[in-house]
Amino acid sequence: MRISDLGEFPLIDRVAELVTVDRPDVIVGIGDDVAVLDAGGEDWLLAKVDIQVEGVHFLREAIHPRQLGRKALAINLSDIAAAGGQPHYALVSLALPADTDVGWVDELYRGLRQEADRFGVAVVGGNMASSPDGIVVDVFVLGRVQRQHLLLRSGARPGDRVLVTGTLGDAAAGLALLLAPSIGVDAAVRESLLARHFTPTPRLAEARVIARSGRATAMIDLSDGLSSDVGHICDQSQVGVRIWAGCLPISPAARRVAALSDRPPWELALEGGEDYELCFTVPPAAAEGLASSIEQGTGTRVTIIGEILPLCEGRWLVLEGGEVRPLEARGWVHFGPGELSEGKER
Amino acid sequence: MRISDLGEFPLIDRVAELVTVDRPDVIVGIGDDVAVLDAGGEDWLLAKVDIQVEGVHFLREAIHPRQLGRKALAINLSDIAAAGGQPHYALVSLALPADTDVGWVDELYRGLRQEADRFGVAVVGGNMASSPDGIVVDVFVLGRVQRQHLLLRSGARPGDRVLVTGTLGDAAAGLALLLAPSIGVDAAVRESLLARHFTPTPRLAEARVIARSGRATAMIDLSDGLSSDVGHICDQSQVGVRIWAGCLPISPAARRVAALSDRPPWELALEGGEDYELCFTVPPAAAEGLASSIEQGTGTRVTIIGEILPLCEGRWLVLEGGEVRPLEARGWVHFGPGELSEGKER
Repeated sequence: MRISDLGEFPLIDRVAELVTVDRPDVIVGIGDDVAVLDAGGEDWLLAKVDIQVEGVHFLREAIHPRQLGRKALAINLSDIAAAGGQPHYALVSLALPADTDVGWVDELYRGLRQEADRFGVAVVGGNMASSPDGIVVDVFVLGRVQRQHLLLRSGARPGDRVLVTGTLGDAAAGLALLLAPSIGVDAAVRESLLARHFTPTPRLAEARVIARSGRATAMIDLSDGLSSDVGHICDQSQVGVRIWAGCLPISPAARRVAALSDRPPWELALEGGEDYELCFTVPPAAAEGLASSIEQGTGTRVTIIGEILPLCEGRWLVLEGGEVRPLEARGWVHFGPGELSEGKER
Repeated sequence: MRISDLGEFPLIDRVAELVTVDRPDVIVGIGDDVAVLDAGGEDWLLAKVDIQVEGVHFLREAIHPRQLGRKALAINLSDIAAAGGQPHYALVSLALPADTDVGWVDELYRGLRQEADRFGVAVVGGNMASSPDGIVVDVFVLGRVQRQHLLLRSGARPGDRVLVTGTLGDAAAGLALLLAPSIGVDAAVRESLLARHFTPTPRLAEARVIARSGRATAMIDLSDGLSSDVGHICDQSQVGVRIWAGCLPISPAARRVAALSDRPPWELALEGGEDYELCFTVPPAAAEGLASSIEQGTGTRVTIIGEILPLCEGRWLVLEGGEVRPLEARGWVHFGPGELSEGKER
């Protein structure tokens, strides 16, 4: 059987079973977004790695190397944020074709450094190798979390509200503009959406407020797409969910691209992915108060977009007119049929 | 300028300059084989990443995926050993073509698990992505070292003896057999050399004796080749070196392959690389005693192969007949001219 017949998530489950160990120092191993480790210190360590492959995650001609450097680090920082932690160190593995321009590598590292400085991260090591084909950038990030502040995908309880930071669908709208340059939007709209696609902002400040509040029950960052990522919370918390399409925070710019692409805006927000906003669950009595604290502390908008249901009630999307649909995970999946033939850049 | 015009090590120096930070918690950043971090615990953390690219480091048709899994982890464990530490956790990034067989991935993870179990390491996370071309396996390892036991490339002093564990050149001899199957050696010789090439053993037990002795002044693992790796000790310790070719520990099997390939055996030992033995320096009065302790404690042979010189005296290789040659780093270099056209598997 080929891995494309099995799909990414079943393959991960399969290999996780091959390597999972029961050790008291491994608080969270394979399966969540980050590993949580008790390495003897007061805090727990958070470890995360994310690989970026040319032709799959990025197109060399479309992204500036400095943006790629920033993004390759940012998407890992986002996972550390989602666990309620702070990032400290990064290591970078690069596989490079021998004809890569030295200036391109310089710019990649300038982007890494820029993003690292912004969030107090030190790039402390790495590794370079030649590549017979495309470029591969693999970034490993190490962080720490106070034990009592750790947030995982598991922990959501029926009745909890589902909240998100920022706006959803902007990165997908930016990608849509890249793939179909004929979509006519004005320069400011284009620029803002491309920035969301190329240089996502890890929500570390927002995550710190959420973690310290002690009110959130589960958290994840939105990388694959809300429908897929909220599904991870449901899987690991053993709950259902109801998402209200009409409440999804969608920017005017993303709404404009959705209209011009003839797609409902909630579809971009639900299925687009790569927004790197935080999605978290909070008991109903605390939800509005926490949303306000985050907004006051960081200036970032927070929106209640749904509620957690008992497992047996399933996963639903409620459209604005009242129509109820099953909430299907339609985010990005590696090894899925046709993933590359569609020319998607992820 | 292309990176092939610059070469691997100047490129590493160049990007290191772009990202190096002066922080008290970064004990060793980019430049040594491992990052050494003070993350608040009693011990220091050791972090290391090493990427394996199909067509550069391995050929899919030549190596069994279980061997590849073992090796991808082992080469990182070897770096943790060389710093005097113990490995604890690993994360694995994989880029896989969509048509990769699920059984191949299973076997890769079985190899990872096997090697991890052998050395008390937990595989705690990772990441999978599709690859439009070849397979990429990037393994990150996190370990710990007692502060007083840390060993680096720097620290060697004139007069110190240079010691190595095990035998040198076996992995290169195994590679020679792979690339020229016509070299006629008997099955046992072939098998032992291929095992050294495909499944190197990280010298963790030996490193523990060395680190605890407090006698070694510098240490490195032999990945690129002795001439290149001892050069790293010289660079970072600001010393010269004299290596005695006649003292290099070379197995009868490697000598046989050298003879059949019409190469002097010391050339395999000096330039071959991938032996993953330890090379370390010890003040003269302590060298023989430490060698004996290691042999008694682990059963692994240890050989004195040279001596550290003042920087101004340079780097020399003394042949058995007394001829003295400059010791040139001729180990593996990424992005070097013709590295791939020679079809080398590294």
